[in-house]
Amino acid sequence: MTEFTRIGIIGAGSMGGNMSLLFAEHNLHVSLYDVKSKSVQAVVEMANENDKTRDKVTGYQDYETFLQSFDNDKHQPRLLLLSITHGHPTDEVLAAIRQYLNAGDIILDGGNEWYLDTERRQKEMDELGVYFIGMGVSGGYQSARRGASISPGGNKEILDNVILPFLRTVCAKSEKGGECVTNIGPGGSGHYVKMVHNGIEQGMLSIVCEAWDILHTLLGFSEDDIGHIFTDWSKKSELYNNFLISIGGEICTRHYKGNDPSSGHILDDIEDKVVQDADNTEGTGVWSVQEAAKAHISAPTIAAAHFLRVASSNRPDRIKFDKLVKLEKPRLAADLQMKTDEFIEDLRGAVYVSFLASFAQGCNLIATTSHAKKWNIHMSEVIRIWRAGCIVQSDYISDLLQPLYIDNEKSNGEPLSNILLSKSVAVDIGKYYPALKRVVLVAIEHGASVPALTASLEYFKYVSSTDLPTTFMEAELDYFGAHSYDLKSEHAMDIKKGPHHYEWKRP
Amino acid sequence: MTEFTRIGIIGAGSMGGNMSLLFAEHNLHVSLYDVKSKSVQAVVEMANENDKTRDKVTGYQDYETFLQSFDNDKHQPRLLLLSITHGHPTDEVLAAIRQYLNAGDIILDGGNEWYLDTERRQKEMDELGVYFIGMGVSGGYQSARRGASISPGGNKEILDNVILPFLRTVCAKSEKGGECVTNIGPGGSGHYVKMVHNGIEQGMLSIVCEAWDILHTLLGFSEDDIGHIFTDWSKKSELYNNFLISIGGEICTRHYKGNDPSSGHILDDIEDKVVQDADNTEGTGVWSVQEAAKAHISAPTIAAAHFLRVASSNRPDRIKFDKLVKLEKPRLAADLQMKTDEFIEDLRGAVYVSFLASFAQGCNLIATTSHAKKWNIHMSEVIRIWRAGCIVQSDYISDLLQPLYIDNEKSNGEPLSNILLSKSVAVDIGKYYPALKRVVLVAIEHGASVPALTASLEYFKYVSSTDLPTTFMEAELDYFGAHSYDLKSEHAMDIKKGPHHYEWKRP
Repeated sequence: MTEFTRIGIIGAGSMGGNMSLLFAEHNLHVSLYDVKSKSVQAVVEMANENDKTRDKVTGYQDYETFLQSFDNDKHQPRLLLLSITHGHPTDEVLAAIRQYLNAGDIILDGGNEWYLDTERRQKEMDELGVYFIGMGVSGGYQSARRGASISPGGNKEILDNVILPFLRTVCAKSEKGGECVTNIGPGGSGHYVKMVHNGIEQGMLSIVCEAWDILHTLLGFSEDDIGHIFTDWSKKSELYNNFLISIGGEICTRHYKGNDPSSGHILDDIEDKVVQDADNTEGTGVWSVQEAAKAHISAPTIAAAHFLRVASSNRPDRIKFDKLVKLEKPRLAADLQMKTDEFIEDLRGAVYVSFLASFAQGCNLIATTSHAKKWNIHMSEVIRIWRAGCIVQSDYISDLLQPLYIDNEKSNGEPLSNILLSKSVAVDIGKYYPALKRVVLVAIEHGASVPALTASLEYFKYVSSTDLPTTFMEAELDYFGAHSYDLKSEHAMDIKKGPHHYEWKRP
Repeated sequence: MTEFTRIGIIGAGSMGGNMSLLFAEHNLHVSLYDVKSKSVQAVVEMANENDKTRDKVTGYQDYETFLQSFDNDKHQPRLLLLSITHGHPTDEVLAAIRQYLNAGDIILDGGNEWYLDTERRQKEMDELGVYFIGMGVSGGYQSARRGASISPGGNKEILDNVILPFLRTVCAKSEKGGECVTNIGPGGSGHYVKMVHNGIEQGMLSIVCEAWDILHTLLGFSEDDIGHIFTDWSKKSELYNNFLISIGGEICTRHYKGNDPSSGHILDDIEDKVVQDADNTEGTGVWSVQEAAKAHISAPTIAAAHFLRVASSNRPDRIKFDKLVKLEKPRLAADLQMKTDEFIEDLRGAVYVSFLASFAQGCNLIATTSHAKKWNIHMSEVIRIWRAGCIVQSDYISDLLQPLYIDNEKSNGEPLSNILLSKSVAVDIGKYYPALKRVVLVAIEHGASVPALTASLEYFKYVSSTDLPTTFMEAELDYFGAHSYDLKSEHAMDIKKGPHHYEWKRP
């Protein structure tokens, strides 16, 4: 087994910088490079402030010296981690360092990258004998420092024999699932899983912010009240230890000066613009929607959340349109005051079951693409490595899904491509659908924006309907497009066009 | 000016076959090829049944003879129309006929094609001196026979001087807008406009089928009653002469044997599966969702409709999930019986304003992409050519949008990238938003599936909100991702990340 004593990292931003400190703490000598030498200097100083990491991080200002600095002995491969922006910046770095790479070197691309770009680079690097691993790193900068959930994909032998033993020492660990890293599969599969992780996250973020707005605006609760509700939710049952709910509790109760209630809430000052999709610093939300469409997987919760985020970024247009259209504003739901506890319990159920919608859409997308691309991703492993260190961490949902995937993988049959068809999942949806519906009705009635909650509600209805409105759509498509249809009496089950056409109007 | 006397057509399906007859009627000699010789024979026979087209369509069985057959005299280019399935089939045909092409030949690709494939083929054909025009043909097979709405894109000179004079003779004509053809722009712009046309159509199809289901299931109306309601809507005000509503009226009242009421309604027999997205015979719905995500245009109505269609195709999974989850079924809204007329008027407004949402999303997508790609598409022309012959035909919406775009284009300023910011559009949205909300509340309460109606309602709310729930999303993103935010007090207007980060939890 290879034991690395040195690693090179390109990118000293919040992710790369914190991973430098983490690796240093695990006794690696870290060579760090960034075009911004100040960022490098800051990380080196932070390392030197702490006994465990002192003198373990060294900064470099040119690629040649940098790439010579983390040679392990000659019998070991050189390990290089990229933590930079996706797309062109990564190509530019690879072009610049190409001349200094040796056969046998291993590059871990730890950014959020479009998986087809990863596969292209794998081929390019393969020509040099360099192993290129597309490595999802989930959990944000705190996890980068403490141990993230890591989804690497690429060359099987290198992953199994060289990379996983290393990553196991530095990744997040969960109580029930152990080390939050696994060999996802070949090609761009690791980056694909991270992309969908962020797609699920995007859906969940929308759901939790819609719930916050309902509590805040429709129920008139203070930030502190909402914080206590979220914290309470995160301590029990279906939202137990749910990461986004847990930090939601902290966020709502956080004042500027420690716990001094007279200093305002930080949350009150934050503008309602989410910009990282629109300025292309983040690609995973865009790609998740595109991939769901391409793979023919219904992902309305994830897409609704995305379109809300994109619209939020354009505040000038929102202000202009508001002045012109003057729609109702969200308002206090006075009639709820008498049954607040009941409604909060409904809201908890609505949030949980909508989270489950986002998971179902994302997991079905991964499973379907894995099948089409012959990646053979073990979904039970994906759920396992999401048990700690990452943003979608949802203990209850992991407990629900992991056994289903394990059973399916043991059976050696077709992979489980639609988790809604599992009894335990269906039971929970059946249990909390009425709560979701009640919450949506109250929210719409009182003018709140609930795109992801409504998308989840509609999703559950139409994926379980045996008599959809689309009968009429089929008739219209056949009228003008001769698209042809099945007859109800045929009970046709194939996903292919029916043979019947009616000449509604002769051309 | 070139006057064509001959044309070659590859593809004798419902579109290519009917265009053959149309061109023959316009006195062209049509050479027709299809791998299915039976399809060719059927078209030839149809042509020979009619005095106007007799002996004008000739079938061929090999490419060489076929391509020699429609030589015009030597000073004129040869005109070839492709009407085949997008993707590989088109590449295969081009590879097969490549050796028989001459410099100066013009190929019109009349299929629904991914615009980047069109741009690739334009480059490939350019090497041979062959002009390749990506040509959207909207309106289905009846329009193919009678005159379609046509959106060609490619070489400007060839389009303006050679192709448009020809297409003007065979396209649809509208009372207010004249010939439904224009030079859309360079590259793949013509196919792009057709793609978005179909995206808008997809949103509208969902809206109208959701409305049909509400009338059918929640109000308990017979097909004939619904047909009369749709026909009534199509005769006045905002839904005047709306194509999908008009044919909806016909569809609902159509019995098997003429007008014999004792022979059943055709609609009653049609299964609720829409398969053409899932089996890849249609790409435009998938691509519209992908392009909206890529261009950062919120298009939730179009996406919601797409995900409903995709889910509808998988009837086996719906049946299985239904058995497991047992959600409520849509039910009669008994309390509506007393105020049916009011509710129907609400539904009419809800349908119209949701149609407008679908148009806004699609038009904003075209305008944004045109700007990014420097296509310089005149949106007033797009709206004008959609006035007849095509599926999204909506007289009132054309009357609303065309003047806005004309004024904008005259002003020589930035193109109008968001039509919601036009006063007349905002007035209509403000007027019918309450109706849409009432309809959605009734539909959700009674268990109907209304994904596109709810997506439209949520869209209008969040694009006009000045205080979105996304404040809380920003806080969460900053907590774990150090994404940074603006302060409300800064009134930041730029679509770029704010500069502030709060250290919610030290790594």
